[in-house]
Amino acid sequence: MSLRAWVFGRRLATAEEAAEEIGPREGVPALGLDALSSAAYGPEAALTVLLVLGAVGVGYLPTFILAIVALLLIVYFSYRQTIAAYPNGGGSYIVAHANLGPTAGIVAAASLSIDYILNVAVGISAGVGAVVSVFPVLQPHLTECCLVILAFLTLVNLRGIREAGLVFMAPTYLFCASVGLALALGVWHTLIQGGHPRAITPSAPLPQAVEPVGLWLMLRAFANGCTALTGVEAVSNAVPAFREPRTRLAQRTLGIIIGFLALMLLGIGWLCKAYGVGATEPGQPGYQSVLSQLVGAIAGRGVLYFVVQASTFTVLCLSANTSFSDFPRVSRLLAMDGYLPNVFTHRGRRLAFSGGIIVLAVLAGMLLILFRGVTNSLIPLFAVGAFGAFTMSQAGMVKHWWDRRREGGFPVRRSMAMNAVGAVATGTTLAVIIASKFTEGAWISLLLIAALFLLYSSVHRYYVQTRRALERSEAIDLSSLAPVRAVVPLKYWNKASQRSLALALRISKSVQVVQVMTGDDPPDRLRRNWHDWVVEPARAAGLGEPELVEVPSNYRQFVAPLVAHVRDLQRRHPGCEVVVILSAIHGRHWYHQLLHNHRAEVLEARFLLREKPAVTVIVTPWRLDED
Amino acid sequence: MSLRAWVFGRRLATAEEAAEEIGPREGVPALGLDALSSAAYGPEAALTVLLVLGAVGVGYLPTFILAIVALLLIVYFSYRQTIAAYPNGGGSYIVAHANLGPTAGIVAAASLSIDYILNVAVGISAGVGAVVSVFPVLQPHLTECCLVILAFLTLVNLRGIREAGLVFMAPTYLFCASVGLALALGVWHTLIQGGHPRAITPSAPLPQAVEPVGLWLMLRAFANGCTALTGVEAVSNAVPAFREPRTRLAQRTLGIIIGFLALMLLGIGWLCKAYGVGATEPGQPGYQSVLSQLVGAIAGRGVLYFVVQASTFTVLCLSANTSFSDFPRVSRLLAMDGYLPNVFTHRGRRLAFSGGIIVLAVLAGMLLILFRGVTNSLIPLFAVGAFGAFTMSQAGMVKHWWDRRREGGFPVRRSMAMNAVGAVATGTTLAVIIASKFTEGAWISLLLIAALFLLYSSVHRYYVQTRRALERSEAIDLSSLAPVRAVVPLKYWNKASQRSLALALRISKSVQVVQVMTGDDPPDRLRRNWHDWVVEPARAAGLGEPELVEVPSNYRQFVAPLVAHVRDLQRRHPGCEVVVILSAIHGRHWYHQLLHNHRAEVLEARFLLREKPAVTVIVTPWRLDED
Repeated sequence: MSLRAWVFGRRLATAEEAAEEIGPREGVPALGLDALSSAAYGPEAALTVLLVLGAVGVGYLPTFILAIVALLLIVYFSYRQTIAAYPNGGGSYIVAHANLGPTAGIVAAASLSIDYILNVAVGISAGVGAVVSVFPVLQPHLTECCLVILAFLTLVNLRGIREAGLVFMAPTYLFCASVGLALALGVWHTLIQGGHPRAITPSAPLPQAVEPVGLWLMLRAFANGCTALTGVEAVSNAVPAFREPRTRLAQRTLGIIIGFLALMLLGIGWLCKAYGVGATEPGQPGYQSVLSQLVGAIAGRGVLYFVVQASTFTVLCLSANTSFSDFPRVSRLLAMDGYLPNVFTHRGRRLAFSGGIIVLAVLAGMLLILFRGVTNSLIPLFAVGAFGAFTMSQAGMVKHWWDRRREGGFPVRRSMAMNAVGAVATGTTLAVIIASKFTEGAWISLLLIAALFLLYSSVHRYYVQTRRALERSEAIDLSSLAPVRAVVPLKYWNKASQRSLALALRISKSVQVVQVMTGDDPPDRLRRNWHDWVVEPARAAGLGEPELVEVPSNYRQFVAPLVAHVRDLQRRHPGCEVVVILSAIHGRHWYHQLLHNHRAEVLEARFLLREKPAVTVIVTPWRLDED
Repeated sequence: MSLRAWVFGRRLATAEEAAEEIGPREGVPALGLDALSSAAYGPEAALTVLLVLGAVGVGYLPTFILAIVALLLIVYFSYRQTIAAYPNGGGSYIVAHANLGPTAGIVAAASLSIDYILNVAVGISAGVGAVVSVFPVLQPHLTECCLVILAFLTLVNLRGIREAGLVFMAPTYLFCASVGLALALGVWHTLIQGGHPRAITPSAPLPQAVEPVGLWLMLRAFANGCTALTGVEAVSNAVPAFREPRTRLAQRTLGIIIGFLALMLLGIGWLCKAYGVGATEPGQPGYQSVLSQLVGAIAGRGVLYFVVQASTFTVLCLSANTSFSDFPRVSRLLAMDGYLPNVFTHRGRRLAFSGGIIVLAVLAGMLLILFRGVTNSLIPLFAVGAFGAFTMSQAGMVKHWWDRRREGGFPVRRSMAMNAVGAVATGTTLAVIIASKFTEGAWISLLLIAALFLLYSSVHRYYVQTRRALERSEAIDLSSLAPVRAVVPLKYWNKASQRSLALALRISKSVQVVQVMTGDDPPDRLRRNWHDWVVEPARAAGLGEPELVEVPSNYRQFVAPLVAHVRDLQRRHPGCEVVVILSAIHGRHWYHQLLHNHRAEVLEARFLLREKPAVTVIVTPWRLDED
């Protein structure tokens, strides 16, 4: 087994694809990690805004959670419809592109791509941040830790999505089970103690109120809490990864994810109020996450507490994986429609779309290096992309039903109404997010989305132009062919150059052997032996008689005088096709190339970059270990 | 004028070479900076070792200086003879190679190269260190300052050696003149004040003696002082850069350099004793260079003092330039003898040997970055290379005279005797240097010399093998030529692929169009229209009828199935020459290449690296702006 096979897994045939398909058991961890892990930071994000209200703020949390869960259910039913309507994958890009046109489609795709890239960076940095707060010795190596985890995720995903699902299954289910158990325990305690349970480990005291309740504050708290919704999109985009019956299994997977998430959010919201757990100032000494305080209050600092903490760390860290499943899929769709280079459509040795995985890893790595792996700096950029994609997708679904309004009766209208509610709700949320976080970093996201939009459109324009320039669907034109003339630049008379000359003589009747006189020329044995060494054998073999030409070079250059000579030949024989034939010597190892000149490459590049029309340069390779 | 012409100067024709040649006026600054600047640190290096003797130590300095100047004169007369004997450049490499054999030659070349590389790093870091001690604000940017100066020197030298000489002329002559004036003033004061002059600015007090006088101490002081001799080699290596009469002008240049240097050394030695100036602890607070103390004592801190200091800074900093003249010359000699790649023999646009200049700059830059621009860490590595080269060169000269001992009479024996004295003296010094500095860093130099030695010998071995493998000085063998078979991989039927096919049909009677079925194939229009689009036109033009072949690909690969197909074709038609013809599309800008596939390059690489025998891949370029 080669090293490559060991690291990346054996190469999979295209026919093995079915075996790589997934069901809900693998789908929930592979596609739901991002959504589920949101429970760990969504409620806290809302509570952090409510800090200024003091103890009163915590009392509002259940209301916010109810609103968020309502939004979550709207999004769920909307995406259920999308999955049914687009069984071949119905991400925001497809839905917006199909219903609202190409421009809306690539806006959605750009939003989504930025969301995915940020999700990788935020997920990893949050996970590492959590680990680092337990092991402060790692603090100076924050960025390096993030990059190690990124490399690990990249590798796992290059091995293929199903194995990725297997790796992430245990932590995801452990997270759901332990958080669920803690919440159930909390609900039980609360019920038997009459709604006012006693905290086992007391949570942090709540600060004094410093601001009155206001609409803007409420909107900001809601917007922040909406980060709990990020990642819900994943399943609808990955429908083709499911085994048959695709639609049903994908819907069931989405249902399970949303169900778990909603239960966790509701439990956290209600119990925070019951136990009086609020946020603590992030980034300050004494900071403790809401989940940590809550589980401590319910169950004390025992085994359950540490299981919850450990699985939260892991899940946050691995939530990045959702992006690794989905970003390559979106990139592939864009490439198939000509918005990205072809390479994104190629499946790698393990049937994963390697190109997208690698680009995602590189971009997320750049973000991590740029922001030095600090989550706090990345968070304000987050959620803009996700809600942009939600809004585009649901607006697209409204159009989808509108176009079908005459087909069905009541269900179409109900569906359209639901998607319209979803579009308005997510659109409003998006507006609130942009407005409240603009100066904190949302502007960077908007800028990146605009940049991606421009990239996609210019790639598309280039491909369209190229296709038009090359298009010629008719018989090949062979009527006006002038003979091929071969130019063979030759410095040393040896086996390699003799091979080039032999090829030239076999493909052309008019061959010129050109000696470019650069001033450090070898002794002129070829000229003296020209007749015996070349002309006689060519005559004997019935081939054309080659000509020996000297080309002067005053500036010790090889390429420029040769190019001038070729141009001159083309002028003197209009319509002829000139090919240049030269040999390149290759040693056994790559570093041997440092010891040979690279005239062939330089010549090719020169003919391509600076000269019109391009001339074909034929390089006859000579391997030193060949004979 | 293009940017490139403005930065590097206009391109010079080979015939303009004479105009680039130099005389003593340009030769002293261009080749002597290294040697002359040694006066600034040689005596100080000896005094630093003598520090442990307290005030007594200074008294020994004139003796050491006399010994060093005697060694300098021995070296001078030896190199005078070398210049006369080797008018085409008689560096250590040539002399050792010619007289002691190739192995000795490349040992000398390796020593010399290491010396040159270290000289650049030491010179620049010493200069920057001096500047930084005046402007401490630059301290955190030490490495960056060094690299800026390195870049400047590289650029100046890429413009050509004569202009380099012009740039460095002013500081060199200013240094000699100002130091000379200060020393003359000091001698005058000493003489009129009866040998015990009064210091104008008192020098640092001398410490108490902590060690008795001992032989080992004396040897170490002598070895350290011998750093004053580094750089003397330069002229003998650069003889071909001089205008006619070459030998005389080169000897005169060497004489002027050695004369200046000896006078400065003697003056400094005698006046240090007279004024009681000793070294101060290097790298400690209160450190002041010996030259600075001495000039202060002689002339006070006036205009002369600051001129000496400023020109010393400049000269130290620019002494690196000697290496830029000489390292490329040595590399060129090695390349001409097949010990280094050919590229080192090519003259750049300004007739300088650009390859060597760039490699020197890169290696010295790496040293500067590695040692963070700190002179103190680099100094122990220094002088090993220089004295290694001296010893090899003079031993070679002894052999040179020995071989000619029957030719002349008395002069040959006298010459041989002098070179023998030189060889023994420099060899002993080398042994002392290695022994006394081994653990401090001399081992690194020895290791680097060994590494270079291995590099040179393996490059040479490879070139010899290559020449042998390719050698074939006889008539070209065209007797057993089987027909050329062309394979044209084709995916899309467009102008570019039609061009490839047209070339294939013109150079071969048996053409196969191959469609590699990777699973994402375009609609099969070509197969349906094959007869009308291809077969008919080929028949009409009187060309061979091509064949359409489908090659399955189960792993979404293009290259591997195609290679297998070509191999199969070769097996079925033994002796035939198979060429693969495919097109490559090129956009207007380099970044457009990111949007095209690179099958041609991948295929070429695959045929070269993994398959035997190599198959010729013909790439027909298609420029999008061509028609």
